[in-house]
Amino acid sequence: MIRLEEFNEVCQKSLNMIDEAGILLTPEDRKKMTAADFGLSHIKTEGVQILSMFETDRIAGKILVLLPNQTEPEHWHPTVGEDPGKEEIIRAISGDLYFYIRGKDNMQHGFIVDGKSDCYTMRKEVVLEPGEQLVLPAGSKHWFQAGKSGAVMYSFSSKVTDLLDQFSDPDIARETIIEK
Amino acid sequence: MIRLEEFNEVCQKSLNMIDEAGILLTPEDRKKMTAADFGLSHIKTEGVQILSMFETDRIAGKILVLLPNQTEPEHWHPTVGEDPGKEEIIRAISGDLYFYIRGKDNMQHGFIVDGKSDCYTMRKEVVLEPGEQLVLPAGSKHWFQAGKSGAVMYSFSSKVTDLLDQFSDPDIARETIIEK
Repeated sequence: MIRLEEFNEVCQKSLNMIDEAGILLTPEDRKKMTAADFGLSHIKTEGVQILSMFETDRIAGKILVLLPNQTEPEHWHPTVGEDPGKEEIIRAISGDLYFYIRGKDNMQHGFIVDGKSDCYTMRKEVVLEPGEQLVLPAGSKHWFQAGKSGAVMYSFSSKVTDLLDQFSDPDIARETIIEK
Repeated sequence: MIRLEEFNEVCQKSLNMIDEAGILLTPEDRKKMTAADFGLSHIKTEGVQILSMFETDRIAGKILVLLPNQTEPEHWHPTVGEDPGKEEIIRAISGDLYFYIRGKDNMQHGFIVDGKSDCYTMRKEVVLEPGEQLVLPAGSKHWFQAGKSGAVMYSFSSKVTDLLDQFSDPDIARETIIEK
């Protein structure tokens, strides 16, 4: 649950960060800015802001924004019917961005959200500098976090099936409820 | 056929245009810059420069560059086996960009390459300002052209099958031969 006031605040901050990164948005794009709190009700700690640029039955492109020190919870994109699962490419645009994927623990820059070490099991850190990219194969578990500057990135993918994403945190509900 | 010297020249100009547009490229990205003359041997008139950012079996992202008044020949992405054809989303980054698709002739900004009116049959003009996008469904015939400033754009798509593209100009061969 997120209050409308806070929802509007994180969306506006995110639009400002996209503007500062030099990404041009049309008025139509700006209206599509949204935010997800994953049902955890503390979006500035765990959450993400999302602007969908395009989405067809086959491919999708989004801009994702993390506010300073905001964390997107660990999740993976499962097989859905005949779809082997969403394949995703992240391309960093600006800010401090840390991805965590399967592999040897080398965490150095990021942090585990307080009391949630069971919900953040991937500990191989990949620092993405602006312009760098990371391929996330279908089904691969990942989470990501911004440093003190926040982060703006592109996410390009095969068909979006976000409401079917699987999360390590059993308390998560993917749908965000806005309290007016 | 294109001389190596000219190939290098159009690639370097295109990298400069991407830099000027504020798009960050890694050294690895820069090495991927290439150019296509479609076998017509006059790349500055008909041709395109291409930087592939990522390409998997399912999705691809490229940066396309047109030099001033350069034209990408009319083509379409056909059905290939079980693939219904490449679906493509163009997102304009900078410059003057005109797309031509099926529909009522409203050409105003662009021009037909000299003596080639049979090879450019789509005449519905869509002017793409920086930040604007256009969805090209699989199989839809299209061509595009830059105005006097040239143009830089993203192309996001389902699986790339470019060597199987179909062209309106019977003289076209999709593979570019570089003469050293």
